[in-house]
Amino acid sequence: MLFKVEMIVRVPDGMNKDTFAGLVAEEKAKAQALQEAGAWRHLWRVAGQYANVSIFDVESPEALHELMLSLPLFPYMETSVTALCRHPSSIHSGDR
Amino acid sequence: MLFKVEMIVRVPDGMNKDTFAGLVAEEKAKAQALQEAGAWRHLWRVAGQYANVSIFDVESPEALHELMLSLPLFPYMETSVTALCRHPSSIHSGDR
Amino acid sequence: MLFKVEMIVRVPDGMNKDTFAGLVAEEKAKAQALQEAGAWRHLWRVAGQYANVSIFDVESPEALHELMLSLPLFPYMETSVTALCRHPSSIHSGDR
Amino acid sequence: MLFKVEMIVRVPDGMNKDTFAGLVAEEKAKAQALQEAGAWRHLWRVAGQYANVSIFDVESPEALHELMLSLPLFPYMETSVTALCRHPSSIHSGDR
Amino acid sequence: MLFKVEMIVRVPDGMNKDTFAGLVAEEKAKAQALQEAGAWRHLWRVAGQYANVSIFDVESPEALHELMLSLPLFPYMETSVTALCRHPSSIHSGDR
Amino acid sequence: MLFKVEMIVRVPDGMNKDTFAGLVAEEKAKAQALQEAGAWRHLWRVAGQYANVSIFDVESPEALHELMLSLPLFPYMETSVTALCRHPSSIHSGDR
Amino acid sequence: MLFKVEMIVRVPDGMNKDTFAGLVAEEKAKAQALQEAGAWRHLWRVAGQYANVSIFDVESPEALHELMLSLPLFPYMETSVTALCRHPSSIHSGDR
Amino acid sequence: MLFKVEMIVRVPDGMNKDTFAGLVAEEKAKAQALQEAGAWRHLWRVAGQYANVSIFDVESPEALHELMLSLPLFPYMETSVTALCRHPSSIHSGDR
Amino acid sequence: MLFKVEMIVRVPDGMNKDTFAGLVAEEKAKAQALQEAGAWRHLWRVAGQYANVSIFDVESPEALHELMLSLPLFPYMETSVTALCRHPSSIHSGDR
Amino acid sequence: MLFKVEMIVRVPDGMNKDTFAGLVAEEKAKAQALQEAGAWRHLWRVAGQYANVSIFDVESPEALHELMLSLPLFPYMETSVTALCRHPSSIHSGDR
Repeated sequence: MLFKVEMIVRVPDGMNKDTFAGLVAEEKAKAQALQEAGAWRHLWRVAGQYANVSIFDVESPEALHELMLSLPLFPYMETSVTALCRHPSSIHSGDR
Repeated sequence: MLFKVEMIVRVPDGMNKDTFAGLVAEEKAKAQALQEAGAWRHLWRVAGQYANVSIFDVESPEALHELMLSLPLFPYMETSVTALCRHPSSIHSGDR
Repeated sequence: MLFKVEMIVRVPDGMNKDTFAGLVAEEKAKAQALQEAGAWRHLWRVAGQYANVSIFDVESPEALHELMLSLPLFPYMETSVTALCRHPSSIHSGDR
Repeated sequence: MLFKVEMIVRVPDGMNKDTFAGLVAEEKAKAQALQEAGAWRHLWRVAGQYANVSIFDVESPEALHELMLSLPLFPYMETSVTALCRHPSSIHSGDR
Repeated sequence: MLFKVEMIVRVPDGMNKDTFAGLVAEEKAKAQALQEAGAWRHLWRVAGQYANVSIFDVESPEALHELMLSLPLFPYMETSVTALCRHPSSIHSGDR
Repeated sequence: MLFKVEMIVRVPDGMNKDTFAGLVAEEKAKAQALQEAGAWRHLWRVAGQYANVSIFDVESPEALHELMLSLPLFPYMETSVTALCRHPSSIHSGDR
Repeated sequence: MLFKVEMIVRVPDGMNKDTFAGLVAEEKAKAQALQEAGAWRHLWRVAGQYANVSIFDVESPEALHELMLSLPLFPYMETSVTALCRHPSSIHSGDR
Repeated sequence: MLFKVEMIVRVPDGMNKDTFAGLVAEEKAKAQALQEAGAWRHLWRVAGQYANVSIFDVESPEALHELMLSLPLFPYMETSVTALCRHPSSIHSGDR
Repeated sequence: MLFKVEMIVRVPDGMNKDTFAGLVAEEKAKAQALQEAGAWRHLWRVAGQYANVSIFDVESPEALHELMLSLPLFPYMETSVTALCRHPSSIHSGDR
Repeated sequence: MLFKVEMIVRVPDGMNKDTFAGLVAEEKAKAQALQEAGAWRHLWRVAGQYANVSIFDVESPEALHELMLSLPLFPYMETSVTALCRHPSSIHSGDR
């Protein structure tokens, strides 16, 4: 089941730089593990903003929620979630 | 160069049903030709709405504009366009 | 899989009253069939507005989309869709 | 009388983790007591967000307000409240 | 039970003037009957706009919905509904 | 002259509890004095939110401004102000 | 008593040009009469839009409402109204 | 050249009271000097809010920007700027 | 004096195609004349939308307003106007 | 490839003045270097606000993102990005 999730990261003003760098490194490791596992199907940076557009392929909304909660930067994100389904005009076998 | 485009289609109240069905068929043919040509990289339906989320891979903003203008339903769409770039955490070779 | 869908119905100004009454009757029959089939889990009227709050229990976003398209009033609706999942504090066996 | 309440929880940046964990535990106990008492009729998590969709069955708007004020996380919530009533197409005896 | 309802009336461009004047006269008669019956507790015009602020005292959200549907101008209104309750600082016996 | 004022109170995260309790007590005393004096005509709590809907009867916008500035919680409020006038369909002698 | 009113004029697509020109001429005559009478204190065009910013000096919100209703283009306007009062730093005798 | 500027002042929660009182006094002195110089043509308080509506008469957008930057409270303001021009129906010699 | 103007063109559903093509041709001729005259300094298409971003260099807000009113498509545009001035970090002699 | 970027700078309340002055100086140096290199094609101040309108000419969305991240004030900016392309009515050779 596919979901588009858009994430905007807002770093609190007073956060320690090393603390933040550590979170970013953990986030990257987690994101790559989830991509390798097939759950994080696509990941793009929004040009000019600290934000991304992602496509997740999960078994259920519960699985999406668990995945999002597992992201180290989740507490600093504003997220928007959109359920997707196959488009009748799509010819891409992967877009489902 | 990648762009996310979200399209919401609004059919005018008084449009003739056959006219509209004809436009939808033309739109589908055009969308599939653009997918085969590689320009329309991904195409998903937004669940529960007459809307889609698309990823385009084009050579320039001009090429994106030409593509959008060529869609038979363009005059009835509200669109939002977001320029994307490779995310430093992405491992997918196609997400660029 | 649960989705909350909010629907606001906007009747075009010039629609014939009998045409509209016919659509409303068809919508009611469809809604009741979907409730009996278990897919339309909850249906409430928003007090003071021509709008409803619904909970759907479907197998996939595709199934939600098919269901919404099958509603006779769908062309006159503005919809918002939210994917739900079980809340860790919920004790209701049906809220999943 | 039914109300839909949507709650988004925003934890202040500097809140002590133990303090927050304590509030969450108290919130869970309170939420379960209110569910057992029948006042908190439905409780769902919004997938991918620290937010919920709830249906309350209370005797009056005053009772709803008292209930909301009694929630340990209320000071950290942004809430939206919608009064619901039985939908003429509903067949569910519980949707009233 | 008290509700604040704000109503903005939007007259369709092509509506016949006599038809509209007839609706306005019916609306006034209905509004005055509901005031006399005690259900429409307060009614104010928003200065400079074709809109009002109203306080209704009804037995339930269902009663509010029936009342709103009975207004001749309801099909041309955009409404917003807010459930009210007694304020702990209020000294007015009527504000409940 | 009548004004509807809606006030949402936002307490700063770090405010001392006793300081806040003191402000609330002062606010209540002030609100009741203004009600007794006739300037604060109606005061309702918005169900489920730390917010109120108020109707003020003052001699001028200046008088409204002075009144609002005199409220101990004013620095923590977000306010919206709407000038009201008698509605041609109103039968309530007090709604002016 | 001073009010700032912002008016955006939206001409219906199908309005006859002569009808519209007639309304504009009537509007101008009315606006000038109200300026001469002192009620329409200031009137500016918003650069690049079919909109204006106006300051009215009237005896009450009722008087403002009557004035607005008397404008020939009122049915085609979207308006926003703000009650003003003397600023403590103002030195202009006319700004009250 | 005329501009309407709306300013909303937001005082940071933790600002020292004397510091703020000092800024307010400086702001008043500056505002009065600019009024005397003719650049700050009108200044009104928005009733019930810590906000103002101002009309500036300056030689250029650059002059407006310099003026705004010179205000002691500028760092705490949210501003909106609208370029104005003479309205064809205006009879006031000063509204240009 | 520089202004950024963003224009979104909305063609009415029922407009005759030849009428519209005629307006577009007139608009193009007018736009090119204004560019040659130096008033329309920059003109870009927004990729994927029937909209543009323009920079005008005019003597006054009045001149901007006259220019906008002279555009054949002005009645079908939604516009937003922003006054610009030289940026202290700019090195471009033309950006003023 | 052209992008319009609008940047609003929000300085955190508690930032040290010298720290901020240092960032501003670095930002200016960086902005001028990017202008000299041709990537930052236009830069205007929004009159009356701590904000700018910029036109960038870059090779790709990735290049735009790198450029934005290199700005010393980026962490304190809210940005909006719009892809531009040549307008069919443009006669300026530089507007592409």
